[in-house]
Amino acid sequence: MTKQDTREAAFLADFASMSSFGATAGGGIDRQAATLPDAQVRTWLRGILESRGFRVHFDKIGNQFALFELVPGAPYILAGSHMDSQPFGGRFDGSYGVLAAAHAAMRWVENLRESGETAKYNIGVVNWFNEEGSRFKPSMMGSSVLTGKLTIEDALASQDHDGVTVGEALEALEMIGTEEAPKIAGYAEIHVEQGHTLEDRGLTIGLVESTWGAVKYDITVKGDQAHSATRMQDRHDALVGASKLVIAAREIADEFLARGVDIVTSCGEFTVFPNSPVVVPSEVRMLMDIRCIDADELTKADEALRARWAGIEEYAAVTIEQQESHSWGANPYDDAGIELARACAADLGLSHDRAFTVAGHDSTNMKDHVPTVMLFVPSVDGISHNEKEYTKDEDLLDGVTLLTEVVTRMTRGALDA
Amino acid sequence: MTKQDTREAAFLADFASMSSFGATAGGGIDRQAATLPDAQVRTWLRGILESRGFRVHFDKIGNQFALFELVPGAPYILAGSHMDSQPFGGRFDGSYGVLAAAHAAMRWVENLRESGETAKYNIGVVNWFNEEGSRFKPSMMGSSVLTGKLTIEDALASQDHDGVTVGEALEALEMIGTEEAPKIAGYAEIHVEQGHTLEDRGLTIGLVESTWGAVKYDITVKGDQAHSATRMQDRHDALVGASKLVIAAREIADEFLARGVDIVTSCGEFTVFPNSPVVVPSEVRMLMDIRCIDADELTKADEALRARWAGIEEYAAVTIEQQESHSWGANPYDDAGIELARACAADLGLSHDRAFTVAGHDSTNMKDHVPTVMLFVPSVDGISHNEKEYTKDEDLLDGVTLLTEVVTRMTRGALDA
Repeated sequence: MTKQDTREAAFLADFASMSSFGATAGGGIDRQAATLPDAQVRTWLRGILESRGFRVHFDKIGNQFALFELVPGAPYILAGSHMDSQPFGGRFDGSYGVLAAAHAAMRWVENLRESGETAKYNIGVVNWFNEEGSRFKPSMMGSSVLTGKLTIEDALASQDHDGVTVGEALEALEMIGTEEAPKIAGYAEIHVEQGHTLEDRGLTIGLVESTWGAVKYDITVKGDQAHSATRMQDRHDALVGASKLVIAAREIADEFLARGVDIVTSCGEFTVFPNSPVVVPSEVRMLMDIRCIDADELTKADEALRARWAGIEEYAAVTIEQQESHSWGANPYDDAGIELARACAADLGLSHDRAFTVAGHDSTNMKDHVPTVMLFVPSVDGISHNEKEYTKDEDLLDGVTLLTEVVTRMTRGALDA
Repeated sequence: MTKQDTREAAFLADFASMSSFGATAGGGIDRQAATLPDAQVRTWLRGILESRGFRVHFDKIGNQFALFELVPGAPYILAGSHMDSQPFGGRFDGSYGVLAAAHAAMRWVENLRESGETAKYNIGVVNWFNEEGSRFKPSMMGSSVLTGKLTIEDALASQDHDGVTVGEALEALEMIGTEEAPKIAGYAEIHVEQGHTLEDRGLTIGLVESTWGAVKYDITVKGDQAHSATRMQDRHDALVGASKLVIAAREIADEFLARGVDIVTSCGEFTVFPNSPVVVPSEVRMLMDIRCIDADELTKADEALRARWAGIEEYAAVTIEQQESHSWGANPYDDAGIELARACAADLGLSHDRAFTVAGHDSTNMKDHVPTVMLFVPSVDGISHNEKEYTKDEDLLDGVTLLTEVVTRMTRGALDA
């Protein structure tokens, strides 16, 4: 067995162990932020990295850092992702990136020990807190706090559906610390693609060059509660109004796709009140989004959706209230990072091309903060946020090999300005 | 002050007290079955009736009976309704009928004491358990068990959303007994109309002659969970499919109404899984119904709805599974009971006419079991299952006067075959 074979077997064995935390019957994981399985997998990761000489701690928002200080006082190149999942999510999303970072960092330590080389920067692994945002909003919470996009106070006060705050949940599971995050000189993240463009093109590696733009809507449709015996003309049926909104978003996507525009529209959260069998619903709260690579088309889709609101209000005799709307344009990653990743992939003989990310990642926060590299490996059929999410072993392993090379060059200062 | 004035003031004072149990800020009540407010209002009712010499007990499914035995061993004429409510329901629905029954029974006792008359039957008040069915399904639970339409075992095992059974909830609040229900010779119920046909016609009393027919659907729309970044063509969006079903039911009602058919269609319960902001929903569970007075049109509406399923399955790439469907035709009340109520209203000089009930009531069960009378008083704007539900004092009081006369004649044997 070559050293590489041993390393790869170790990675796959660790990956299987990791997938047992919050494992579901359907082959996925249910490991929402600050739940017991989330705490367990963090303790397990700590064991792996402490035994290799890393110092592991939590910061004040529950981000987990594992640091290896080779160069006293020097900043860190961090690699990582998140180990929390959606309810009934896949075992690759996020988790793969953290474990790949851990193995890349362990290989880096081993390689430098063997070669006697030194580096400009130290290496660290990060397991961000609450990337998914399913239990506690907003998503990408840990990296948002670290990069100053969200205050620690607002993050800790965020409540789940049962009124439990992030602060309480973190304290209860001892997933919170007092230490600051380390000084960071650069960030690298690898993730399974949430789509199948790599698979379609027969590529092993995606060099992420941009996020898509997005508009996110937080909407309440307000009607008036009534007995389901109430005559149709006397109703103000919030569910009819909200259903029309869901269909409107779908129809807009269909129209834009027919014109050749790459776009997706979704409604993921949709909660009906009072939700009782013989009651015409009084209210529906819904979170919708439109995502598109093209800023002009995104604006047009947003306008097209809003243009339908008055008609829906009239049809269902309801009011549509928007609590909040966030939007951002397509957000590019630095060319230097993309070029570094390209060179590493080429040198390793891994097939690769540029790719977009429709979804947000912790690297979307980090790239505005420090030099950042974002990598994809393929996902079979592009299945994501689903227990059936799957990436082939060889792709997982090639990703770890590439990430090791990327962080190695970054610790030598490859992305220094 | 006349005796009638004193009685009416006492009724309105009791009505105000009763409305404090589970009172909501919006002027309604939230008094779901086997919750603390439901238990409280029952203890309060017991106090009122025990102090007038009634014997009060619960049966094995939590129906509350208050019995006055004037004629030893004779069966009872029962009057009543239910004091449980929908979430954020009105303070009249059901509760009015129980309090009207209590006052009618107290007046009956007082009248017979004063006149020295006797009667063929005894009088009793019933507060049925769980008419609403919002917390525990099915609705009309207590009267269904009493009339043998539901087994006591199935009723006690029914679970709420937290997995608490009816049996556990009743035990915890000591709302359950060991005694059998009394022997029943007839049943009378008064209720606020859940519509505004009486108001529109300027009538005080509705003589309920029939229920509407209904088809009830318990449907699960199954898609496949995905990231909201997933391409539209790769999705199996359960929420898009379920929204189409909601709109289909509305459109069918519109089409039938345009042809002059009286019909209502509704979806009251609609629960989305996993209900997370960035996840394409995997599943929606929904309870829908169609109600119509005309059996042929009801069948056509049911067929029209089902005819759309295949198209919806294709549109959203989902499957529509029906767990259960119940249906019943328009269900008439006995002419003898309607004629008795008509004669009483005419003798009292109360304006009246026949009416339909679109909703089910405990009397819908009882009328298949014993001679039954069902009465309506008007509801302003027909508002129902809503905190703003309202009936004028004079209508409430006329209803109690009429109910007193009806039960008085029933205890004399007016509805004996």
